Parts: sequence; structure tokens; C-alpha cells
Amino acid sequence: MTKAKDIETRWWGWGDIEQTFAIEDRPDLVPYLEKRLGIKVEKLREPDPTLDEVELRDSRLSKKQVDKLAAIVGADNVKTDKKSRVYHGLGKSYRDLLRGHMKQIPNPPDAVVYPGEENEVSKLLELAEAEKIAVVPFCGGSSVVGGIEPLDKDGLSASVSVDLRRMDKLVSVDAESRVATFEAGVWGPQLDEELASRSLYLGHQPESFLFSGLGGWIASRGAGRQSTSYGKIEDMVEGVRMVTPRGVIDSLAVPATATGPNMRQVVAGSEGTLGIITKATMKVHPLPEVYDYRGLLFKEFEGGVQAVREMLQKRLFPECIRISDTEESHLASFIRKPSSNPVKEGAVQAALKAMNAMGYSFEKGAFAILGCEGKKVDVSGRMKQMQSICRKNGALPLGHMAGDEWYKGRYDNPYFRDLLMNWGVMIDTLETATNWDNIMTLYRNVKKAISQALDDYGSPSIVTCHLSHSYVQGSSLYFIFLGRMVPGKEIEQWEHLKQLAGDAILASGGTITHHHGVGYEHAPWFEKEIGEESMKALKALKASCDPAGIMNPGKLGL
Amino acid sequence: MTKAKDIETRWWGWGDIEQTFAIEDRPDLVPYLEKRLGIKVEKLREPDPTLDEVELRDSRLSKKQVDKLAAIVGADNVKTDKKSRVYHGLGKSYRDLLRGHMKQIPNPPDAVVYPGEENEVSKLLELAEAEKIAVVPFCGGSSVVGGIEPLDKDGLSASVSVDLRRMDKLVSVDAESRVATFEAGVWGPQLDEELASRSLYLGHQPESFLFSGLGGWIASRGAGRQSTSYGKIEDMVEGVRMVTPRGVIDSLAVPATATGPNMRQVVAGSEGTLGIITKATMKVHPLPEVYDYRGLLFKEFEGGVQAVREMLQKRLFPECIRISDTEESHLASFIRKPSSNPVKEGAVQAALKAMNAMGYSFEKGAFAILGCEGKKVDVSGRMKQMQSICRKNGALPLGHMAGDEWYKGRYDNPYFRDLLMNWGVMIDTLETATNWDNIMTLYRNVKKAISQALDDYGSPSIVTCHLSHSYVQGSSLYFIFLGRMVPGKEIEQWEHLKQLAGDAILASGGTITHHHGVGYEHAPWFEKEIGEESMKALKALKASCDPAGIMNPGKLGL
Repeated sequence: MTKAKDIETRWWGWGDIEQTFAIEDRPDLVPYLEKRLGIKVEKLREPDPTLDEVELRDSRLSKKQVDKLAAIVGADNVKTDKKSRVYHGLGKSYRDLLRGHMKQIPNPPDAVVYPGEENEVSKLLELAEAEKIAVVPFCGGSSVVGGIEPLDKDGLSASVSVDLRRMDKLVSVDAESRVATFEAGVWGPQLDEELASRSLYLGHQPESFLFSGLGGWIASRGAGRQSTSYGKIEDMVEGVRMVTPRGVIDSLAVPATATGPNMRQVVAGSEGTLGIITKATMKVHPLPEVYDYRGLLFKEFEGGVQAVREMLQKRLFPECIRISDTEESHLASFIRKPSSNPVKEGAVQAALKAMNAMGYSFEKGAFAILGCEGKKVDVSGRMKQMQSICRKNGALPLGHMAGDEWYKGRYDNPYFRDLLMNWGVMIDTLETATNWDNIMTLYRNVKKAISQALDDYGSPSIVTCHLSHSYVQGSSLYFIFLGRMVPGKEIEQWEHLKQLAGDAILASGGTITHHHGVGYEHAPWFEKEIGEESMKALKALKASCDPAGIMNPGKLGL
Repeated sequence: MTKAKDIETRWWGWGDIEQTFAIEDRPDLVPYLEKRLGIKVEKLREPDPTLDEVELRDSRLSKKQVDKLAAIVGADNVKTDKKSRVYHGLGKSYRDLLRGHMKQIPNPPDAVVYPGEENEVSKLLELAEAEKIAVVPFCGGSSVVGGIEPLDKDGLSASVSVDLRRMDKLVSVDAESRVATFEAGVWGPQLDEELASRSLYLGHQPESFLFSGLGGWIASRGAGRQSTSYGKIEDMVEGVRMVTPRGVIDSLAVPATATGPNMRQVVAGSEGTLGIITKATMKVHPLPEVYDYRGLLFKEFEGGVQAVREMLQKRLFPECIRISDTEESHLASFIRKPSSNPVKEGAVQAALKAMNAMGYSFEKGAFAILGCEGKKVDVSGRMKQMQSICRKNGALPLGHMAGDEWYKGRYDNPYFRDLLMNWGVMIDTLETATNWDNIMTLYRNVKKAISQALDDYGSPSIVTCHLSHSYVQGSSLYFIFLGRMVPGKEIEQWEHLKQLAGDAILASGGTITHHHGVGYEHAPWFEKEIGEESMKALKALKASCDPAGIMNPGKLGL
């Protein structure tokens, strides 16, 4: 079983400390980036930081306070060492990684505690309230919006990060009803393995999957790669339990109910500001017989967008559909790993030549991934109908090879980001969602704002976008952008871009986040988007659950 | 256009004052009821009440207060006459109808106001807060849980019912994104007609459809007959706008978002306790080409339940599926209207005889309705697969005639209830939901509790149930029960039953309501179901939106 506690991860970057992004077998990538961004990739910008180099504020907890924490969770499960505090001091946003590399951990927790059961969580909150200590729930720590960074708050004297990884048990499975209840600290791979051993499947695999878990997914309203069919995480929650400083908010796990405002949907998205999610009952599916992922190349992005709308509005839901715009398709062609088998690679090159002759290219077209999961017979039926809609909208099917390659590499992008950052490349992502009638407007306005922001700091830009997580009514848009870091001004440059992009999203009718969450990085736009009265309502909710304001201060603008 | 304001409805019973339930052409029904319930149907228990007989408390509003209301909505749109106040004083629960017949309207609003636009709603709330007047939002008035009855509250001196029927406009349609925005006061038929004229369709047709509307559906988290495919009303809401005494809670209409706790799902189910819903953006569908409804007869109820679970877990979603238990199937066979065409009726009787020979009967089997709506080719494909699953689970397809008859009569039950009540029959319904693994336990326990309660008051009972509004994880169960009214103790008898049934539902893991809502009738169980901490959170929300506590006092236990 792949247990979260067995993996050593980077505190200054992404993922497993043993893994990196393989650049050697991608000969075209560096020249492309050098040309487009005007950089010279010679060596690492800087070596990986070491713990010794980090100057960390001392823990502000007294010995007595640490003893009290230990009395609750056991001495082995309270950590005040440098590594633990640094590891829990930053999330994984671009700004976080910049600060990690700069050895800046401005807000480390004063201790990290690892409760083993809900009862301990309750006692921790009780103690924290009495001692005026901020509590930051921590699941995988993969937030890209500043969701897990302990922020100071007037009236609080210290902070503890409550890492849930010991609470990772499968509580119960009901295969007849297709639900499974897990403790909230279970990470993606363990959850999938537990279910798979019972021939079940959650169908939630975000990019962070290997290093994130159930409680965090729900707290931040995440989306997996297969959300188009299985839904976002909040759609998968049948019941959820949250311990607040004032008691437990629980919900009966039933398929639907008319019992007032839906507290499940209040807990989902609460980002630890109301309490700590300890358990959730999730809707599950039979383990798919096949995972059929294929590549397609549309003549243009709009054709792909149109195809997605058409298939969903015909109630044909692929598990996964992603349409890259031309800029992203072009970039993908340079990221591609040529086959080491010369016969295979020859076939690919011949196919590319033939495609070009037919008017299809990665420079001008839109690369797409279409994925179906499930029973073999059902998948092949759906795939046939969907590919036919794609063809009608100008797509050339590229077959399984392109799909399989994407599927295999679907968790690699964060490692790629680490690598690029170390070459002095500014690289980040942001995402939004809107209805179909507004999708191209939002797309153009956000791309323009990002390019403008990079230009403002004298950087050329690669601004890519793909359509993913789509619905009958509209879709999410996911932007990846690359520029040149401005040495000494890296954070300022990023903040400027974030400001322009966030403003463009709201001005163009998009939501400030479809699945990354709010944290503190999105808080200013969040408040604008939901409006004054909803903010007041949230503050009232928070005051009810957490009158002392100890829960994850500063997130969601609370 | 079928406008709500053009229909005269009963204040003491259901629906259109011109319509009743046709008993004449159902010769088997009366003998059956007489035998089963030990009653003698000779004449009406009592004639319909008249307004003259009602003794109504005088309006507690001063002339000055009425003038202030009139200054906001216009003098024509403030009513203090007896009829208006009586009409808005009771909902349509069994207890409401009993009281109507007894000419007891204990809590009439002191005035009824009809705002024409949102701005007037805001001003009304401002005035009500200043004058300490309770405000009860009123859409169709069809609540069966006491949702629209104005209750007194300490500190408030009077109440007004805010009837939204003038706010019934289609605000915008976006066919590309499949959404339509309506004002909240639009009733079912007008909403469907507006959409149908644009070849669109909401797919929400609850039993109350003809006399209920959008704001009420959302406020009470209702379910339409076709919820198995289109979802409950809260699933159809993309955006919703609510005016509270402290400002407007609005939500961006996007397909999905990660912006914190979902306020749409807080507004849905708030039952007027936080504010008045003024507008909603709804997900819509293409107008179906065909409505294919068919009857089936299962050998037994469990087979039908199993078939529904199987089709949904295979991701085959009929728009409508209902499995009546044996008691309900038996009753349905007596409610059936024999054809006036002797040839047709002869064919039906011959078919029944043939069925009996095959071991199928309405006395022992389970009657089912399977309905698919949509494009002809899609419907026929799905129908074929679904019927095959039904046959595998012991069903005999009965064809279109039974389905069409059910579809045609789908809004008639409330008229039937009126008729029976007038014969001295206690008749009411209640509903719940649970996961599949618990469905038969919940079914048996609730049936037993209802029978017990009727027996406690010396009444024989007919307790029927059907499975409807089903999900991959479980289903709703809908109970209809008939007994003998105990003269002079009608309400006490009903309260006893409600107590036992509600307790049995909660003790058996069901939700106290899947789609009727909470109102004040379900408030005690509601509080138990959601728990102390969630109640506190709701109270905090209410205090934020409605600090003076003027919004629909006493509902949801608030």
C-alpha cells in the first residue's frame, strides 16, 4: 500500500525527492524555449536549497504548550524540528517555490502535529482555542493558492499545522450502494489502491494526485482529470464530517435531501477556515475494465471547443476531454519524447508528414486528448460516437499512442515546472470557468492580460490554454504561461501578472477559480466574485464554528 | 400563456376551483375503499367551506403601515381583504386542508403584497424590518410541510405574505449554453410554455407543477417527476439571486467553481428564512421530441427495486422510474378508469386474465412506470435496454396505454386527496431517501410505523409506497397512506402518525425529507438530522442575513 508517510517529498519543489523531469530524451525542447523566451539554458539557475541554509524563526510555542500537544497525540506525533516546520510552511504555488528556492519561509508553523483519530483532532482544537494558537489543516500540502501557509493573526500567538496523514483508513465500503467512507488524511494512491482491491474506483485524479488527499480535495473543491464524467470532488461527496472548535458538523450520507441549506456544500470549499474535515463518504464506481485515451488533432481550437459542447449537449460524457489551443499544441510537440525505437519514430515522422499534407499541424492546429473509462463494450461505443463528433468538427484521430503517452505523463507537469524554474523560466498556471456563450471571449481576454503582464516586465511569453473539465453549460479554461523571470523581481513580476489575469477573469465573467481554490492568493477576487453579503454570511458561519478565529486564518479572506 | 394570476384556486383544498377528481367513471374504487377502511361512502362529510363562515382575525397592520406598503408596490398590489388573507394563511398539507375545512385559519397574514420587481422586494424587507413585521415569501403556496403559514414570533407585531406571482418574467435565454434566467415568481406551466416556445425544457414537473413555481421549488429543494435524469431543482440551478433584509446574495452563473462554500446550495433549501429568491439561472434541455411512458408489472417489489438499481448503476438513466409496492399496485388497479370503449376494455380484461395465468397480478405484483424523454432515436435505444433489465428482474411490460394513462393523470392525486378527505378518509403522504443497502429496511420500518399509528387510533390502514427519484447510490421512498379519520380528533390522529413515522425514518437512517422540505412540520426531526452544530451555523447565517428575524419565522426551526 502506497502510504503518504512513506514518501519523502521536496519542501522547495514538487513531489518525490527521487524524481525529476527527464529532459535528456527531449532534444527539441531546450532550443524551442531558448528561441521563444530568449533565454540560454546552460546550467541550473541555482542548486537546490538545503535545510542548513534556511534561517527559520524559532518555534513560538512554550515547552508547556508542546507538552500539552504531546499529551493529546503522543510525543512522537508532535514535531518542532526544522525540517517538519519548513515542509509545512509553504504550499506549491509559483510564489511558494520561488520562496523555497530563496530559502524564505516567512510563516512556518511552530509545530506540526499528526493526530491519529478524530477525538484527538477535537482535543487539539480545544487546546488551540484555549492557548490562542492558529490551526492549519494539512492533507497533502499541494495547494497552489496559499491554502496551507500558516498566516499570523492579531490575537494569536503561534500556529500549528495539523497533518492528517495518519488518519488514512478506509472506514467502510458499501458496494451495493457504491459508496466508501475514508478518513480524510488518505492520499490519492492509497485511496485508489484500497478501492481497486475491492474492484472500485473514485475517479478523481487531479495533477496533484500522488501527493494530495481526500480532505484537501474536498476542502478546496478540486477537480480530477476525469471530472467531465465523474464530476468534481464536491459532486462525489455523499456525506462529510468536520470537526470545528465548537463541535462536529456532520451530514447524513443519503443520495439527496431537502433538509435545508446543504451543509455538505458548505464544508466543501471551506478550506479549513471552519474546521477540519475528518471523514467523508464518497460515491464510487466499478473499477474500469479499460482506460482508453486517444489523441486527436483539430484544425483549430474553436473546432475542438465546438466538438466538446456538442458531445456533452448530446449527453455523451467522456471521462476526460482536453482541447489544447494552438500555442499549447505547439509547445506539446516540443515536449514530446521521440521514441528510442527508430522504426517507431520513423512511423511517427511519416505520420506527421502525411498529416501536414492534409493541412493538419501542431503549429496551427489544436491537440486534444479524449479519454473514456469503463466497461470495454461501453467505452468502445461511446468512443466511436465521440470521435465521429470530433471528426465532424475538423479533427484527425491520432490513435492510442498519443493518448497513452499523455496518460502516462499526466502527473509529470509539476516536475517540469521545477526544472524550468531552475532555468530562470517563470512558469505558472491559472484556471477559470464560464458558460459556452462566453468561452472564447474569456479565453481571449485572459490570454491577452497574461501576455500584457509579461510584456510589462520585458518578457516574451508563451501563453497556452486548454479546455478541460467541461459541462453541458460551459467549461473550465486552464492557462499555462511561460516567461522570463526578472532576477530580483521574481515575486513582484508574478504578482503583477496575477493581478492583471485575475482582473481580466472577473471582468470577462469567469470565476476566479474552477478547481484550484481560493487560499489567500485568490482572496481579493473571491470577495468581489461572491459579493459583500455572501462574505458577511461566511463570516457569520465562521464566527459560529470558530469564534476565536483560530482556523486557518487569512484564507477565503476570513 | 398560462399565467398564475389568471387561475382561481381553492384556499381549503387543491388546485383549480373548476376541477375535481372524477369518481363516476371509477366504479371499483368506492367499494374497495369501503371494504378496506370499513367506511360507508354515502355523502360528502361536509360541504366545501365558504369564506363567510370563516372567522378571521382582523389585520394587525395600521392604516399607516398599509399605506407604506402601498407606497412601495402600488395600492392595487396590497390586499387586506378576507379572501386574500385566507388564501395565504394555509399551505396544502393534510393538517392545512383539515383546518381549511374546519374554517380555522389561525395565522393569516395581515396583508398580502404583490411586488412587481426586485427593487420593491428590497424596499418591502426594509420596511418590514423597521416596522417589525414578519415576511413570508409565497410562490405557489403548495407547501405540504407548513412552509408558507405565517407564524407569530416574539417581537414581531404582524405578518405579510409576499406573493411573487407578478415577478414571472423570462429574463434571458442562452440556448448555446443551455441556460435560461427567470424571475422567481413564474409558475410551472408558464415557465414550460416560455421555454417550449424556444424549443427548450426544464424537466422539473413535481405533482404541484400546475400551482407552484420556481422560487418555491428552489427554496424547498423540490424534485420533479423526471428527477432521475434531470436532477432535483437544486441540481438545475446554475445561479440564484436572493434579497435578504441586509442586501443581496447572488452567485455567478458558471457551470462549476471552487470559490468557497457554495452559496447556491445555501439559498436552495433556505425556505424563505434568509431572504426572498428573486431570480434564478436554470440549466435547460432541448424540448423532448418524444415522451415515452410505459407501464410494467414486476412479480414483486424487490425485483423492481433491484431493476432500478441495476439500470442506474449501469449509467442508464430514465427520466422517470417509479416502482409501486404491492399495496400501491393493488390500490392503483381500483383507481384505474375502465375504458368507455367496450372493445378496448375487453382487450384490457383479456390481457389481465392472460397476465394472471402467467403469475402476474396487481394484488401481488409491483406496478411500475418507466418514462424516457428526448430524441426519438435515443429514447428508443434507452427504453430497449431498460426494459430488458426490468424483464430480467421479473417484469412484464404493459406497454404505452398504462404509461400514458399515468402520465395524463400525473397531476390528479391532490384532487383525489380532497375527495377522500371529504369522505372521512385520512390520506396523506410522506417521503424519505436512503442508500440502496438500507432501502428495504427503511421501507419496512416506515410502513410498520404508519400502520401502527393508524391502529393506535383504531383505524384500519392502507399504507402504500413507491420508489421514485432514484440515484446510483440509493433512492427516495414515497409513502401514501389511508385510514379512517377519527371525528373530533383528526389533527391529533395525524400528529401521532407523523411522530411515529418521522421517528421511524430517522431511526432507520433515512432523511426526514427528500423533496417536500422542512417548513415547521418537519422542524423537530430536521434539527435532529442535521445536528446541533449545523443548526447553530444556520442560526448564525440567519442572524447575518436577517438580524431582526423577520424572514419566515419558525421554519427550519429558525
